[in-house]
Amino acid sequence: MAKVGIVGYGNLGRGVEAVLKSASDLELVGIFSRRDPAQLDTESPAYALADIDQFVDEIDVLILCGGSRSDIPDQGPALAAKFNTVDAYDNHAEIPSYFDRIDQVAKENQTVAVISTGWDPGLFSLNRLLSEAILPEGNTYTFWGKGVSQGHSDAVRRVEGVKDAVQYTIPNQDLIETLHAGKSIDYKQGTAHSRLVYAVLEEGADGGRVKEEIVNMPDYFAPYDQVDVHFISQEELDRDHSGIPHGGTVIRQGQTSPEQKQVYDFTLKLDSNPEFTAAVNVAYARAAARLAKEGQYGAKTVFDIAPAYLSAKDGQTLRQELL
Amino acid sequence: MAKVGIVGYGNLGRGVEAVLKSASDLELVGIFSRRDPAQLDTESPAYALADIDQFVDEIDVLILCGGSRSDIPDQGPALAAKFNTVDAYDNHAEIPSYFDRIDQVAKENQTVAVISTGWDPGLFSLNRLLSEAILPEGNTYTFWGKGVSQGHSDAVRRVEGVKDAVQYTIPNQDLIETLHAGKSIDYKQGTAHSRLVYAVLEEGADGGRVKEEIVNMPDYFAPYDQVDVHFISQEELDRDHSGIPHGGTVIRQGQTSPEQKQVYDFTLKLDSNPEFTAAVNVAYARAAARLAKEGQYGAKTVFDIAPAYLSAKDGQTLRQELL
Repeated sequence: MAKVGIVGYGNLGRGVEAVLKSASDLELVGIFSRRDPAQLDTESPAYALADIDQFVDEIDVLILCGGSRSDIPDQGPALAAKFNTVDAYDNHAEIPSYFDRIDQVAKENQTVAVISTGWDPGLFSLNRLLSEAILPEGNTYTFWGKGVSQGHSDAVRRVEGVKDAVQYTIPNQDLIETLHAGKSIDYKQGTAHSRLVYAVLEEGADGGRVKEEIVNMPDYFAPYDQVDVHFISQEELDRDHSGIPHGGTVIRQGQTSPEQKQVYDFTLKLDSNPEFTAAVNVAYARAAARLAKEGQYGAKTVFDIAPAYLSAKDGQTLRQELL
Repeated sequence: MAKVGIVGYGNLGRGVEAVLKSASDLELVGIFSRRDPAQLDTESPAYALADIDQFVDEIDVLILCGGSRSDIPDQGPALAAKFNTVDAYDNHAEIPSYFDRIDQVAKENQTVAVISTGWDPGLFSLNRLLSEAILPEGNTYTFWGKGVSQGHSDAVRRVEGVKDAVQYTIPNQDLIETLHAGKSIDYKQGTAHSRLVYAVLEEGADGGRVKEEIVNMPDYFAPYDQVDVHFISQEELDRDHSGIPHGGTVIRQGQTSPEQKQVYDFTLKLDSNPEFTAAVNVAYARAAARLAKEGQYGAKTVFDIAPAYLSAKDGQTLRQELL
């Protein structure tokens, strides 16, 4: 039984709390938050993050559920000095330097820090690696969606006259099917995905102007051939668009000899992005606790951990049941 | 540069020879066969398998390309006493005991033996493990095809009156789509796949009787709701059905909380089953050579090897390019 702590209690932290219930070999010690623990809406034990050092001997691994922008870059190295940690740090450009920083802390303090788990980075990265290693001649394509993009939803909400909004990223299914058929495609940002917006207007706002502003927003919407904007009521938004679904596809189309096309496809369709990300974090928390027991200290990514470490089953059972 | 030897020169051995050409960090030392090496139709160096002991110092890893029925169970442990090995042993029921036998030999002789690579067992096993570890509440389904089943093709060829035949296994796409939609299915052997046979009749054979015999063949065809038998000419069979395509899908439908369905899908669509199997073997040969250098001796499966070992790129490059 490995003992787990959760740091941060937003969507991801709540997801980890939920999925730990079906992990028979992991036990939740408590949730650590910068907010007043008495105010957290949870039945699990809750503590002030400031008191976390008192739990050094009671926790085998911490799952860091803060934001990648400002929380994890500081919290990760600080907590890795005393605890084994798992995080879902997802700022792709900064991952290499984050790895180096936390690796040094973890090695100096004999801890394990598993970084950037989840699905992208995470399982998608794993499949990009596996497919490229197996099919060195070829091309890899990543498609995201159908799912809610928090960044794009926020961008729409910042448009003057918009009261609330949700943005769905939708992959171009025709391109995916063309790849499955072994044919080549021209993957461009503007055609690989389309964008679907449901927005609630402020009273008296000019829908035509709002729509123009969304469609022409640089980086977020302007590069896309297809952007659909629908104005709906707050009631409809709350009723039909309050979920956080996501998913996507990593496809590698390779060839093992000039005539032989081989298509490798990894696809996720997720009702809840934060809960699935949490489920991946929890599996890697199991791995982190084991690696620490074996003295395999330092920073690790999904690339560095043998799959068997993620399962609660032993090697012999895995070979019998799943190989 | 790791030096590789191929043992056995059937479809798989030829596949390994082909894919090694695009592996810049692996070098083919030679092909070892029980047949007269001068008779092998290859431009690579070819040697008698009986002479393989002379190559102990020249080969870092052997890829065993013999059959799982009679070759690998003997060759594996015998060769693992002197060489690092990789094989695609695919007799699922016997894998646990084969693992134990070769593990003992490999540990005693300080070699690495990677067993049961390929795609099933192999990548499909890996995805069964990952998806179950991440989504402990749920069900995993494996679908095979569309692809040629060698066993079923052989069974049809043994029917009296059949001159030649090819059998395709076809997955039930409706079931796969139902799973993708998050709905539950009733997975039964007879409906999860259908079977499509192209057969060439001997002169004067009774097509009606042959068809009856195929459709009612126990285990191979009788359990299936849909078995289609088409009689065609030898010319048509040679022209349209000489490839060895295959593939399939591992799907896990899980839930992270009562309302949240999560669908995990891994799909392969392969023009050439033996060449893709070979490509997986070659990536694991790279891993075997590295594990041996690190002194991590013994038998390993796809469950036991961190993904980074499969890639020719170093850790920093992988984090920058693929995470």
